Amino acid sequence: MRPADLRALLRDVKRGNVTAAAAAKRIGAAPVERLEFATLDHQRALRTGFPEVIFGQGKTPAQIVAIARRLFERHGVVLATRVDDAGRAALAAAFPQAELHGRARCVVLRRRASRGPRAGGAGQVLVVCAGTADLPVAEEALVTARVMGSRAELIADVGVAGLHRLLAHRERLRGARVLVVVAGLEGALPSVVGGLVDRPLIAVPTSVGYGAHFEGLAPLLAMLNSCAAGVTVVNIDNGFGAGYAAHLINRRGRS
Amino acid sequence: MRPADLRALLRDVKRGNVTAAAAAKRIGAAPVERLEFATLDHQRALRTGFPEVIFGQGKTPAQIVAIARRLFERHGVVLATRVDDAGRAALAAAFPQAELHGRARCVVLRRRASRGPRAGGAGQVLVVCAGTADLPVAEEALVTARVMGSRAELIADVGVAGLHRLLAHRERLRGARVLVVVAGLEGALPSVVGGLVDRPLIAVPTSVGYGAHFEGLAPLLAMLNSCAAGVTVVNIDNGFGAGYAAHLINRRGRS
Amino acid sequence: MRPADLRALLRDVKRGNVTAAAAAKRIGAAPVERLEFATLDHQRALRTGFPEVIFGQGKTPAQIVAIARRLFERHGVVLATRVDDAGRAALAAAFPQAELHGRARCVVLRRRASRGPRAGGAGQVLVVCAGTADLPVAEEALVTARVMGSRAELIADVGVAGLHRLLAHRERLRGARVLVVVAGLEGALPSVVGGLVDRPLIAVPTSVGYGAHFEGLAPLLAMLNSCAAGVTVVNIDNGFGAGYAAHLINRRGRS
Amino acid sequence: MRPADLRALLRDVKRGNVTAAAAAKRIGAAPVERLEFATLDHQRALRTGFPEVIFGQGKTPAQIVAIARRLFERHGVVLATRVDDAGRAALAAAFPQAELHGRARCVVLRRRASRGPRAGGAGQVLVVCAGTADLPVAEEALVTARVMGSRAELIADVGVAGLHRLLAHRERLRGARVLVVVAGLEGALPSVVGGLVDRPLIAVPTSVGYGAHFEGLAPLLAMLNSCAAGVTVVNIDNGFGAGYAAHLINRRGRS
Amino acid sequence: MRPADLRALLRDVKRGNVTAAAAAKRIGAAPVERLEFATLDHQRALRTGFPEVIFGQGKTPAQIVAIARRLFERHGVVLATRVDDAGRAALAAAFPQAELHGRARCVVLRRRASRGPRAGGAGQVLVVCAGTADLPVAEEALVTARVMGSRAELIADVGVAGLHRLLAHRERLRGARVLVVVAGLEGALPSVVGGLVDRPLIAVPTSVGYGAHFEGLAPLLAMLNSCAAGVTVVNIDNGFGAGYAAHLINRRGRS
Amino acid sequence: MRPADLRALLRDVKRGNVTAAAAAKRIGAAPVERLEFATLDHQRALRTGFPEVIFGQGKTPAQIVAIARRLFERHGVVLATRVDDAGRAALAAAFPQAELHGRARCVVLRRRASRGPRAGGAGQVLVVCAGTADLPVAEEALVTARVMGSRAELIADVGVAGLHRLLAHRERLRGARVLVVVAGLEGALPSVVGGLVDRPLIAVPTSVGYGAHFEGLAPLLAMLNSCAAGVTVVNIDNGFGAGYAAHLINRRGRS
Amino acid sequence: MRPADLRALLRDVKRGNVTAAAAAKRIGAAPVERLEFATLDHQRALRTGFPEVIFGQGKTPAQIVAIARRLFERHGVVLATRVDDAGRAALAAAFPQAELHGRARCVVLRRRASRGPRAGGAGQVLVVCAGTADLPVAEEALVTARVMGSRAELIADVGVAGLHRLLAHRERLRGARVLVVVAGLEGALPSVVGGLVDRPLIAVPTSVGYGAHFEGLAPLLAMLNSCAAGVTVVNIDNGFGAGYAAHLINRRGRS
Amino acid sequence: MRPADLRALLRDVKRGNVTAAAAAKRIGAAPVERLEFATLDHQRALRTGFPEVIFGQGKTPAQIVAIARRLFERHGVVLATRVDDAGRAALAAAFPQAELHGRARCVVLRRRASRGPRAGGAGQVLVVCAGTADLPVAEEALVTARVMGSRAELIADVGVAGLHRLLAHRERLRGARVLVVVAGLEGALPSVVGGLVDRPLIAVPTSVGYGAHFEGLAPLLAMLNSCAAGVTVVNIDNGFGAGYAAHLINRRGRS
Repeated sequence: MRPADLRALLRDVKRGNVTAAAAAKRIGAAPVERLEFATLDHQRALRTGFPEVIFGQGKTPAQIVAIARRLFERHGVVLATRVDDAGRAALAAAFPQAELHGRARCVVLRRRASRGPRAGGAGQVLVVCAGTADLPVAEEALVTARVMGSRAELIADVGVAGLHRLLAHRERLRGARVLVVVAGLEGALPSVVGGLVDRPLIAVPTSVGYGAHFEGLAPLLAMLNSCAAGVTVVNIDNGFGAGYAAHLINRRGRS
Repeated sequence: MRPADLRALLRDVKRGNVTAAAAAKRIGAAPVERLEFATLDHQRALRTGFPEVIFGQGKTPAQIVAIARRLFERHGVVLATRVDDAGRAALAAAFPQAELHGRARCVVLRRRASRGPRAGGAGQVLVVCAGTADLPVAEEALVTARVMGSRAELIADVGVAGLHRLLAHRERLRGARVLVVVAGLEGALPSVVGGLVDRPLIAVPTSVGYGAHFEGLAPLLAMLNSCAAGVTVVNIDNGFGAGYAAHLINRRGRS
Repeated sequence: MRPADLRALLRDVKRGNVTAAAAAKRIGAAPVERLEFATLDHQRALRTGFPEVIFGQGKTPAQIVAIARRLFERHGVVLATRVDDAGRAALAAAFPQAELHGRARCVVLRRRASRGPRAGGAGQVLVVCAGTADLPVAEEALVTARVMGSRAELIADVGVAGLHRLLAHRERLRGARVLVVVAGLEGALPSVVGGLVDRPLIAVPTSVGYGAHFEGLAPLLAMLNSCAAGVTVVNIDNGFGAGYAAHLINRRGRS
Repeated sequence: MRPADLRALLRDVKRGNVTAAAAAKRIGAAPVERLEFATLDHQRALRTGFPEVIFGQGKTPAQIVAIARRLFERHGVVLATRVDDAGRAALAAAFPQAELHGRARCVVLRRRASRGPRAGGAGQVLVVCAGTADLPVAEEALVTARVMGSRAELIADVGVAGLHRLLAHRERLRGARVLVVVAGLEGALPSVVGGLVDRPLIAVPTSVGYGAHFEGLAPLLAMLNSCAAGVTVVNIDNGFGAGYAAHLINRRGRS
Repeated sequence: MRPADLRALLRDVKRGNVTAAAAAKRIGAAPVERLEFATLDHQRALRTGFPEVIFGQGKTPAQIVAIARRLFERHGVVLATRVDDAGRAALAAAFPQAELHGRARCVVLRRRASRGPRAGGAGQVLVVCAGTADLPVAEEALVTARVMGSRAELIADVGVAGLHRLLAHRERLRGARVLVVVAGLEGALPSVVGGLVDRPLIAVPTSVGYGAHFEGLAPLLAMLNSCAAGVTVVNIDNGFGAGYAAHLINRRGRS
Repeated sequence: MRPADLRALLRDVKRGNVTAAAAAKRIGAAPVERLEFATLDHQRALRTGFPEVIFGQGKTPAQIVAIARRLFERHGVVLATRVDDAGRAALAAAFPQAELHGRARCVVLRRRASRGPRAGGAGQVLVVCAGTADLPVAEEALVTARVMGSRAELIADVGVAGLHRLLAHRERLRGARVLVVVAGLEGALPSVVGGLVDRPLIAVPTSVGYGAHFEGLAPLLAMLNSCAAGVTVVNIDNGFGAGYAAHLINRRGRS
Repeated sequence: MRPADLRALLRDVKRGNVTAAAAAKRIGAAPVERLEFATLDHQRALRTGFPEVIFGQGKTPAQIVAIARRLFERHGVVLATRVDDAGRAALAAAFPQAELHGRARCVVLRRRASRGPRAGGAGQVLVVCAGTADLPVAEEALVTARVMGSRAELIADVGVAGLHRLLAHRERLRGARVLVVVAGLEGALPSVVGGLVDRPLIAVPTSVGYGAHFEGLAPLLAMLNSCAAGVTVVNIDNGFGAGYAAHLINRRGRS
Repeated sequence: MRPADLRALLRDVKRGNVTAAAAAKRIGAAPVERLEFATLDHQRALRTGFPEVIFGQGKTPAQIVAIARRLFERHGVVLATRVDDAGRAALAAAFPQAELHGRARCVVLRRRASRGPRAGGAGQVLVVCAGTADLPVAEEALVTARVMGSRAELIADVGVAGLHRLLAHRERLRGARVLVVVAGLEGALPSVVGGLVDRPLIAVPTSVGYGAHFEGLAPLLAMLNSCAAGVTVVNIDNGFGAGYAAHLINRRGRS
């Protein structure tokens, strides 16, 4: 319930259009919908600009389909992440229009005419990724930013040990409104890219590595200590979070 | 050297205005200035939009003053962070116009007429902080965002254990273009604020705590695992980094 | 052997009803029962108010059934936790009256007429849980508190990123005698709930998360550093321990 | 604002006694008081049963005295923890009736006639501590429980390597309503005490140790893994939190 | 080559019985035997009193049998630890006299008449273990101490949360020459036993636990910080190492 | 593009042989080849002396074969590491001349006449390994150094607990140009070998161990703290990296 | 109270020499003495063979002197460890016969005629130490073993990077009944020594090192993973614990 | 004693020039010199090519001077590292020819005519360092490599966030025989440099940073996971170790 709604409701109470008891209940009540295995927060779309995203990990295909159905009916757009093979197959069977992103383990449902739930960003989200093995995380970021309404592109396989591959893209790097930089191993790429541009940069460490990599700890610490100013960081392998934040930065807002 | 400059240079080479040797040198050369104890990167202002920031920790007052003098002459604006009492006193003595920020341990130098080195942001940076002890970090973010040209404000002492204090500011939270949320202890504030707004949010863990806090590790991990989408994180106590990234998000750009 | 028993025994020794040797043996002896694979401590029910609980992890179905049979014969009530599918099936086959709790992976055996081994608590245990994935741990706490004799209820899926869902339950939260708050990810829920109530609150971190979550370390540290006073913490995923402690707090005692 | 207050306010709005605008403001407003360096949350006493506690660490003596004065005027009782020598001296000078607890580094202010801000607990809080070096933490728990209104006592220096010292107190251990068990080194005491009683037990690890103790990590992990059911844990050296939770468990409540 | 052998060899060189070249070669040479997949150090039995022990983990059944055959021929006694089901079956098929210890995952081969490779200890090794799940590690210690020639016995399932079970064995604890104390969870048992006896005590942490146990880290740290003097520690789950060290302490020696 | 090439290109621009636009493009362009799943950096061989090495982990057999084919055509030599059974079978089927190294999980492809892509080292790389279980890592180092053109040999199973085995090889140790020392468990071997020689020594910790070994952390820390000067360290189980660096040290260079 | 005493007491009860109430009290009572700041456990000498040792860290000189006086009167021998300069001066002033061990930070008090509280060990404790900086810990072990009644000697500065220094002492190493091996840096010495002898060996990691040494963690992990059988480990810098355990192993016992 | 010496000695024994007893003693004896506080290993120079280096940390000025005097008399060259202000002053007073390196905290003593203890390297050691704060560690490497006989140079302040500064030195980077790359913060520099050259590269992480830097852990992990092949790593802040290893790689050898 937004402030303007609250004031309107209170005016109704004063005029006798709404009883005090009903108003008290409405102030406290939340427009949530309960399935047997989940509580859907439909108010979220109003509050944060996008309906709840389905986090597929640990859910059965049937549960994912059921939740997707409700969200799709209500909001006309659905993003499901970390959906395994069985889950993607189930969604494909249930929704003919489902867009499957195998490597990114994402599925998108969208009403035909719609371009997304909101006006797209003015600029571009550019996802940059260090190695082939980092691609699933990079594509999760890409899919997320796009489904939310941003233009988004990918530059892949430009690790710091072969600088010429990266420097060849300098122009594109500088043209973006916001960058998402994905890297495993030592996680040096965000620092190098961050030194080339003057744009917000979201760094995503991945679990790609072995031994003293500690499943992503090494690049996570590296990125938190980046010598390039303007770098912020998300959790290990969290392509979704990076894409989501990148869209929030990119989109046209009230301000 | 930006791409347009490179093309211009190559045209000059072709026309014979510049020799090949001179051009090769100029392509490789960096307009850096060497002091006895530091190498100043004056090209940085062109590349990333703001001159080098002085990281005061581990530098003597004399070194800080010397570096500040060069940067100020060249760029007309200087930000020095993590400057201790002696360093701030030395800067105050050397620069009558120095703005001292004691709690934030920052000093700002600015030419009178200038509002900053570049056009300010269209919207507002809002810094929110959980406890009194987190104020130095919050103010470092505030000062940084302002000196770079953003409008920025602070809401202090709104920890999650007293939700009403936070909810009273809901309107202001939603009006910001980008939020910086600073918290020590368990670092829960970014998740709560992130659920109330649909704006990019930069979380800053602080070292305020004891025991199993491990000097900021507890809120750092919490923030990286935030259940609110759109949250990105910087290093422990890195108010500067958060303010810098917030300005990059906020400012009007080419896109 | 409780102090009163010791005094009685010593009086018997004085009167010659019991020999010194027999008394010495009885003071040292423990009424334990040895199976081939376990030593059952039947004295425990006297000492701590509830018979030994079967920790199913790492035990075969046959072992679980055998231990359950002895405990049930002697005490009329049995709680088995962390029992996998095969173990639950074996208990269901062996005990027609077995109550199976699939998601919580618990099984309860109870004599018909009995309401539990002891007088129930005067108030209510309220279990609150942040996300769907935390439900197994929350339900383990719920089942434990109930089998021990407490009234206990559950509020599910009220994460901090959707505060309105939580605040809608404020009345119920304040009506409880003791709260168990279960959360994975950043573990912020106990701090928020703890700021709303003046009741003892037991926080349970779960292993729900990925990356820098480190299988529960992130919410564990967060909860240990909670800014809300009155919060105590149990091990990661330890719903049983939280339910047990909640019952001890809730039940009517000698004092 | 408690639910009953909300309903009353809404009735006033209906009757025209309060305008809609004023009501909207009051619903959102928090009765907080701003000093230059802190925001006092006077509503907290209503909400959680005790006024804000002053956490002395990192505050100047003058700040502590100023905050104490406001809280004392409003609530008639003040607890300040982690107050160093200078802070305790300043409070003693400002408040003739101040109770100083040197080893626990606490100060208590109380109006003469008052027994505390609320009815005391029906039973007793028993604080048990393993070694001499753990005493400051144990006494912080003791002082906290007492100032909140509980009867509380201390058994000191009963480490597990000299079991007879502990077993000599078995009777007292069993007579308590709730136990706080404080231990450094290997942190084994809560498990041993927990096996002797059927009462809630709050374990407090201390930073007393060296080497692979890692400043309290060793006993913290030990306590989280205690084989005794009913044990919950607070942060390293957090005697205040343990005493606070113990009082919430012990006190007579609505239920 | 022991010092006396060196002196004898040098005398032979002087007398011309051995050439200088041959002597230089013999001083450097080691009586090792090379299989395709291992280098057996037969000199070890002379040097440390027991032939090489076969560490079964990561070896195929065929490799284990081949190594066992060589060692058995040469030394008449073999101990193989961490041998899985297939390995134990292969050894049983190859050596009719093989003693299989299923739970301890050990196999012993011994010539009939022999009581072991050396004189047994004068006293007794007593292995004490906290929970049923710690038995495999405890039995590995037991088997190791016995095969080396010590008398060794086991007391099982005497955790600290049921002290009476432990105290009932006080007499036996004090009668041992050396104790091996095995515990998972919080690892408190060595401290309690160490306070009851004046004998060397070897503590063995096990990986039995979950969550903040970190696969044995919790009891490892606890045991390293034991408040009972005379406690030394081996690696997590290292029953073999504890049994080996216990035998070295127990056996009759030159001194 | 090496400096000499840049100068030549600029001269061509001046003479009008190359347009400014074409030159600008060529300065930025990189001779990379894109497959559907990888970007091959053929320039690497020029830059660092060896074509890209295929890191097999996480790639399908078909992908490995496809990448190997392109690299082999272009460079005449291919090294693939961390190739599982299926991958090695696929390479064997596709390339009759493939050299399979099962235990090291490596495959080498080489044109008949060629001895490697460059002149071999003047001296010898000596790989030393502590236990049988460390052999796969040691052999990965061996294969890598050889395929790059160094003479390389292996001394296996010379752990520090049987010093005579190691000292028997003293002569060979001192004859090497560079040593690679591979060890799991406590990782002491590099310190002992480092004290015997005056040659560069690369230490490789392995994940061979259990419990407080933390999958290689124990020997990694030991090697980083080696008391022998001249020891440098690579990642846990990184035999490839050690062999590569050893070859760079060993090979004849410009200097 | 040992079993024989218990039986005697019970016989007295039967004969009427002792009342049941008095007996019950005596069974529970412990002969402890309370000072204002400590509880002395005089029964400990009976139970474990040596009076309580004073752990000087965190105690004032006055407290140390007071405790020492009581222990000395009762037991005729006192060991105080981790006593700083002021504490040692205070003990020297109070006890003319005090033996001061500056580098080991220990003080010993002993009655003239006495050789220690009990018969010395039959063999010898040999303390071996890797570097000069490890000497304080090594000497703490030496002093402890001696004051308890063992013959004990020291071999210093025999690090593994200079094997010949160590091997020169082979004879002495093999002559000891038990070894204490002290090392910082990579902690390799116990593995090397352990491979040379067939005696129990207690490894003591020290905090001597920097960087990835993590104040003793590196050698602690190394020692726990030693490839030499028979090695047990104590806490970082715990020379006292090692010397104490070494004496228990060395001394003549009942067995 | 090198093999040739051993053979010669044995021949002397045969000829009767040396008795067997004397030979046995000489084989075992080490030419060490004992001061009150240290054991000097003069044989080290023969064995590893450079006399013992004085590690100044934890030594008094008087001790450092005494050790330096002995080493200088015997070997004519001394390197002392981690020498604080007082220690450097004492060495300067004692040795007029002392070369003081203040920032590197090193002191070098050298006989006038000598160029070092051995033939210098054929090529050049190039030390590269990321930030001003990393200079002390970089200079320690530089001084070490030089005193051992290598030509060595330094490139400072070329962090990855300003690539042009680094790329300007590409030619010099490629001309070196071996590189030492020193970096704090995220430690990305070795990966970037490693991708530009085909020379051995030793990476040195420094403790320069704060928060999630964990005093050098972040760059240490990054460097161990470097995506550039040929990178090896030394301990945090270990400039000495890097310089020493670089010299061993660079110097002209037998091979």
